[in-house]
Amino acid sequence: MDERAALTLLEGELEAAGDDAAVVDGLVLTTDMLHERTDFPPGTTRYTAGWRAVGASLSDVAAMGAEATAAVAAYAAPEFDPDELLAFVGGARDVCERVDAEYVGGDLDNHDEFTVSTTAVGRADDPVRRSGARPGDRVVVTGTLGRSAAALELFERGARADGSEADDIDEETLERANELFRFEPRVAAGRVLEPHATAMMDSSDGLARSLHQLAEASDCGFAVEAERIPVADALLDVADGEDVLERALTFGEDFELVATVPDAALEATRDATDVELSVIGSVTEPAAGITVDGDRLADRGYTH
Amino acid sequence: MDERAALTLLEGELEAAGDDAAVVDGLVLTTDMLHERTDFPPGTTRYTAGWRAVGASLSDVAAMGAEATAAVAAYAAPEFDPDELLAFVGGARDVCERVDAEYVGGDLDNHDEFTVSTTAVGRADDPVRRSGARPGDRVVVTGTLGRSAAALELFERGARADGSEADDIDEETLERANELFRFEPRVAAGRVLEPHATAMMDSSDGLARSLHQLAEASDCGFAVEAERIPVADALLDVADGEDVLERALTFGEDFELVATVPDAALEATRDATDVELSVIGSVTEPAAGITVDGDRLADRGYTH
Repeated sequence: MDERAALTLLEGELEAAGDDAAVVDGLVLTTDMLHERTDFPPGTTRYTAGWRAVGASLSDVAAMGAEATAAVAAYAAPEFDPDELLAFVGGARDVCERVDAEYVGGDLDNHDEFTVSTTAVGRADDPVRRSGARPGDRVVVTGTLGRSAAALELFERGARADGSEADDIDEETLERANELFRFEPRVAAGRVLEPHATAMMDSSDGLARSLHQLAEASDCGFAVEAERIPVADALLDVADGEDVLERALTFGEDFELVATVPDAALEATRDATDVELSVIGSVTEPAAGITVDGDRLADRGYTH
Repeated sequence: MDERAALTLLEGELEAAGDDAAVVDGLVLTTDMLHERTDFPPGTTRYTAGWRAVGASLSDVAAMGAEATAAVAAYAAPEFDPDELLAFVGGARDVCERVDAEYVGGDLDNHDEFTVSTTAVGRADDPVRRSGARPGDRVVVTGTLGRSAAALELFERGARADGSEADDIDEETLERANELFRFEPRVAAGRVLEPHATAMMDSSDGLARSLHQLAEASDCGFAVEAERIPVADALLDVADGEDVLERALTFGEDFELVATVPDAALEATRDATDVELSVIGSVTEPAAGITVDGDRLADRGYTH
């Protein structure tokens, strides 16, 4: 049974499952586990790992339109190197500070593989689910897509340099990759969207899959215009021209928000946030399916 | 750097660390990571694993004197067997029900070793820390000590039977071991103790270590009487007479509460809870050290 089938099985079992975070009496709660082989490419610093792991959970809080209150992490590694541990905590704390949450530590565990489990909690009186999109609403995306795709490309280049010759580690490339791998959880934008958005989630599995998940939860379709998809400059810098759109649509891991907003609320929402909000298309009737420039968009993307 | 040294390093870094759970604006938050090799002996069912992992975090909430609100778990395994997954969720849900908390699911991850990371949240207006014990207070322990030590002994016997002959798995022994391995998180008792207790923590690292940790946080000593230590019948059943006290003192993993209570509040506290509360001794001046029947008690116990 693969991870997606297992998740579907559990959604049937647990009422609170099936959204970015669970909600219990206005408390928003979400947990994620990441590990070295699949989530932290060679060259990822522990500072970046702490930032990114805790940030991923904060992004789920943001996706509910909630305030972020606090985060914890369980840190498991074959050994506890003080510098690595402090760097991890530094990254975890800094990403929390960005969204006015408190990083309050967690647990340590000995493990063969570097593994991190993070939990974030927040508060929302009226959390935004995936299920309220209505035909005619506009589809908005925060920030840009493709930062993580670009980071991974740079991690690979940095590692190749490392592999071929001992002195040839491309520090500058790895530094840029780490920088791109750290992201701002969209808590502030989520708060601005919360009173207006009819549906919302984060783009951690890629825009294409997010649209499919929103469509399934809301029973709707989407008509997206390719030229309106905000592609990160970093991706344009590293990618071959032709697969830029494909990567921006499917790579994921950017932790931007994808929300549906009634046309009338669009201007007010845009005025109230510092983050770029791109309108990439509209919500349609379910029969129209999910299309980009009129072509059907397959449900493909990153499986974590 | 071992786990304890690493924890001490982090306590210096993080204000909220150093108690059973962190507290942020009355929200109590705690996380734990457990894995197969060190925490789930052969014969542990996935139902028991779910119960125990989530229960361990709920116990930390109880140790603050808090109400338990909700829990999440990240479940990582080499493969997702539907029966195992549902059994795990069943155990997680049942232990939450015991303490009026909601189990709201979590994350799935592919991992070489079965690994579980759990987080519990609760609320406490006036959380009980480890640091308020005063000379003259009485030391109380909920329930009995030694259940987990007995369970481990039975898991070993069950596995030995399994190892020697294929048909000879001692199902009854393993069933009893599983039963002992599931525990009631002391949330209700913690709530009763909360208005009165001057210091509190759970006994997950063993009574001896708990007393040392309370003594360090409260700057006090303890005088304990051996015959007052509540030993579990299950441990008496499986152990050789002579090491019963040693195991009850040091084995840990029982998730009982160890609290200090002013003498005047003792009767009211006892009357208000269904759980057995044993007075095992008194808080002393720090110079008196930590003693059992007048002999110094070493700081030894289970390191997770």
